[in-house]
Amino acid sequence: MTNFQNAIETYEALTQKIASYHEATGLVAWDMRTGAPKKGIAQRSEVLGTLSEEGFLLQTSDAMKQALTTLLASKNELSEKTRRSVEESKKTYDLSAKIPAEKFRAHTVLCAQAESAWEGAKVSGDFASFQPYLEKIVANTKEFLELWGYEGNPYNTLMDQFEPGITVETVDRVFGQVREAIVPLLEKIKQSPNAPETDFLFRSFPQDKQKAFSLDVLKSMGYDFDAGRLDTAVHPFAIGLNPNDVRVTTKYDEKDFRTAVFGTIHEGGHALYEQNISEDLIGSPLCSAASYGIHESQSLFWENFVGRDTAFWDNHYTQLKTYANEQFDNVSQADFYRAINVAGPSLIRIEADELTYCLHIMVRYEIEKGLFDGTYEVKDLPAIWNDKMEEYLGIRPENDAKGVLQDVHWAGGSFGYFPSYALGYIYAAQFAKSMESDFSLTDIIQKEELGTITSWLTKNVHQHGKMKTPSELVQDITGGPLDAQPLIDYLTAKYTEIYKLD
Amino acid sequence: MTNFQNAIETYEALTQKIASYHEATGLVAWDMRTGAPKKGIAQRSEVLGTLSEEGFLLQTSDAMKQALTTLLASKNELSEKTRRSVEESKKTYDLSAKIPAEKFRAHTVLCAQAESAWEGAKVSGDFASFQPYLEKIVANTKEFLELWGYEGNPYNTLMDQFEPGITVETVDRVFGQVREAIVPLLEKIKQSPNAPETDFLFRSFPQDKQKAFSLDVLKSMGYDFDAGRLDTAVHPFAIGLNPNDVRVTTKYDEKDFRTAVFGTIHEGGHALYEQNISEDLIGSPLCSAASYGIHESQSLFWENFVGRDTAFWDNHYTQLKTYANEQFDNVSQADFYRAINVAGPSLIRIEADELTYCLHIMVRYEIEKGLFDGTYEVKDLPAIWNDKMEEYLGIRPENDAKGVLQDVHWAGGSFGYFPSYALGYIYAAQFAKSMESDFSLTDIIQKEELGTITSWLTKNVHQHGKMKTPSELVQDITGGPLDAQPLIDYLTAKYTEIYKLD
Repeated sequence: MTNFQNAIETYEALTQKIASYHEATGLVAWDMRTGAPKKGIAQRSEVLGTLSEEGFLLQTSDAMKQALTTLLASKNELSEKTRRSVEESKKTYDLSAKIPAEKFRAHTVLCAQAESAWEGAKVSGDFASFQPYLEKIVANTKEFLELWGYEGNPYNTLMDQFEPGITVETVDRVFGQVREAIVPLLEKIKQSPNAPETDFLFRSFPQDKQKAFSLDVLKSMGYDFDAGRLDTAVHPFAIGLNPNDVRVTTKYDEKDFRTAVFGTIHEGGHALYEQNISEDLIGSPLCSAASYGIHESQSLFWENFVGRDTAFWDNHYTQLKTYANEQFDNVSQADFYRAINVAGPSLIRIEADELTYCLHIMVRYEIEKGLFDGTYEVKDLPAIWNDKMEEYLGIRPENDAKGVLQDVHWAGGSFGYFPSYALGYIYAAQFAKSMESDFSLTDIIQKEELGTITSWLTKNVHQHGKMKTPSELVQDITGGPLDAQPLIDYLTAKYTEIYKLD
Repeated sequence: MTNFQNAIETYEALTQKIASYHEATGLVAWDMRTGAPKKGIAQRSEVLGTLSEEGFLLQTSDAMKQALTTLLASKNELSEKTRRSVEESKKTYDLSAKIPAEKFRAHTVLCAQAESAWEGAKVSGDFASFQPYLEKIVANTKEFLELWGYEGNPYNTLMDQFEPGITVETVDRVFGQVREAIVPLLEKIKQSPNAPETDFLFRSFPQDKQKAFSLDVLKSMGYDFDAGRLDTAVHPFAIGLNPNDVRVTTKYDEKDFRTAVFGTIHEGGHALYEQNISEDLIGSPLCSAASYGIHESQSLFWENFVGRDTAFWDNHYTQLKTYANEQFDNVSQADFYRAINVAGPSLIRIEADELTYCLHIMVRYEIEKGLFDGTYEVKDLPAIWNDKMEEYLGIRPENDAKGVLQDVHWAGGSFGYFPSYALGYIYAAQFAKSMESDFSLTDIIQKEELGTITSWLTKNVHQHGKMKTPSELVQDITGGPLDAQPLIDYLTAKYTEIYKLD
């Protein structure tokens, strides 16, 4: 057997094994979050640690290094699939291998301590107690950036871990476009005398009926229950163990049915993506979403472009009423539609609506970018945060708990992830626009032929897994680059109508 | 650091890791049997294969070998716990290491093929089509026995894997005792005009009410729901992932509530054992039942000595009636008690009752022993089986599907396990008798103080895990060796009364 053949075999055995470890840790994580007996959690964390470490050791092993070196030296002999897979593995290898193990371990310990300090700081609203941890985390991350390397802005390398190929130039461009359109739109909405009534949303909707309705919707979306299941979790999520086992979770609030209904549609959108990745990618690092932003585009497409669309409720409003108590008896479908699309400025990201969510993300994006290109210092973040909130959303947090301390991400050492949330909206709107050249989305939704949408998304997005980069997907689907105009057009039209702005 | 200290550290790191793999494979297995989406099972089997193999490689690694050699050379310096743990690991090591890897792999493949052949043979009742597989499996096992070594009867080594320290002399003695008592007792029962009425058992009992009752009983037994949960499975089981996460499964038959109720009590008995193993054994191979027979003694104790005892229904019969429809409205408690203890000869082991179950086991024990000491040949098994069934139970299977082909064990290469099922009955009766010197079991059950029983079993059995051998447990609890007389006395008294034999 040649060196090359040897390297192929070694590489495939390693990636298969790594995939098995990922699948096992995924199942353990799912179990811990959906109903594992609480006393068993401590020991289960040990198990999770062992499995994660084994996977990590394989990814960074000498055997992996040698196989990658041999294969990358003969790129032209590789199939397209193997080449992409090898490149993906090399990226993972470099991220770990370039950081000295001792430094990486110390950083992991620091982040664990920082999360704990953050929890305390969030309760007391005392940023100063968290500041030294965040300073050290940022300093370490800057050190890592020098080791990893970067082109242009150092922050590019951080975003690349979540959104391969994205740069600050691109994000500045599209976020700027969105901001210029949304900030004045939001201002008009705040002045509008036509805010929707929402009281009737918050009456009592029995949990089992919410579940029945959620299951109906998941089925109509084309979610395959032979390759998945629906459970409850405190912080809902979807998780793909492999394309034939993709699980959705939701939670129920009897006083606000939107949590379960829109939450299930959102997670269902994530799950459809993972269920429809091509089976021939199983066992390789390509059996995964193209990026975090593309993943989010799928959940947001279903949640907003389908679930919050008026055509969707042409079919489902009567059905919803049969599941609910008398909650909606005197509510017209039009009023219901306007209520579920209420929008306005708010302080907390995870409570934000479709219109303002991107603005929350931009505050974080500007701060992260500034931290790593040297514009900002950690000690100034509370003031910067509050100023940006005022600039973008027109409101100022009364304390840091409702401001700079609200999210756990930075305490966990995670930088570069936030932009993906907003990119998901932009992608979703671009995809929706492209879809319109194949069929009328409104017609399809009204005819309850949601499978047509799923087929379109499978053909154009899902099946490819990581075989295409986000920009390749966007190019192939839309014929052009990332573009915020479709999102702006969509939001402007939708909210102009709902708030009767003309 | 000395060699010895090094060996201790290596050994403990290895056993911790092995325990983590066992826990992960346990969770995967639980998930596959309780609700994993069916399409995901194929890929999950790969994961299970990877994790099992990793655990196996650690157990048989050179690092393990060297650590064991060093530690066993300094046995006197080891704590009691470490010594027992090391001996247990050495036993596992030898079982694997003494078989050439290639031979072991070929045998695994053979068993997979044999299981498939057995499935076909069981449908057609055609033993001849299965015979060549079984012959090869037996031949391989004989070869393994020569490599493993044995003292006295070769079959001792096979039984030892499930019931450490047991020998054919002991089993012949106690099984002989039981058979001499039970065969004539069964004969009297068959002649008795006082068989219980059972029609009323088989009406319609709603599944959710069966579940509510089962949960009540599990709670009253002292099963800790913060360290466990109850799910459904086609073939119910209990599984201990660690002592703080021990899960029970059951199944529901609306036409026969006994399946769920006695099944849950049985699996609950297994689960109590695993929940109450001392926490300081976590992460070592001692964090496990003393043997399969001792494990079975716990489930059978709860199922029969508690759940099928008349005192238990003094408390629970009224409760059962409130959960049931009118099923038991005209049934006295005495008639109900007699019905749930109906006994008689039958062909299928897994459908056998408390009185005759041991006789089914003895048929298998005699055959396995004979296969490995050269008395019997595979080709003669159908005739031997049928003759023994006639001798012990007084009935003869009309075909091999209901005879020698009924169990999967042999097709899977499993020999030596069957005796543990019957030893469990014998242990349980011995423990019940010893318990009587501390308190009246009837009183405790009648007063619904089942926690007292659990505490007694924890103190005497559960907490020790594998720190004591089965014979040490029996000696410490009863002051003597394995003895079938308590079981005989119990069965004779119980069935003489129920069938009014005097």
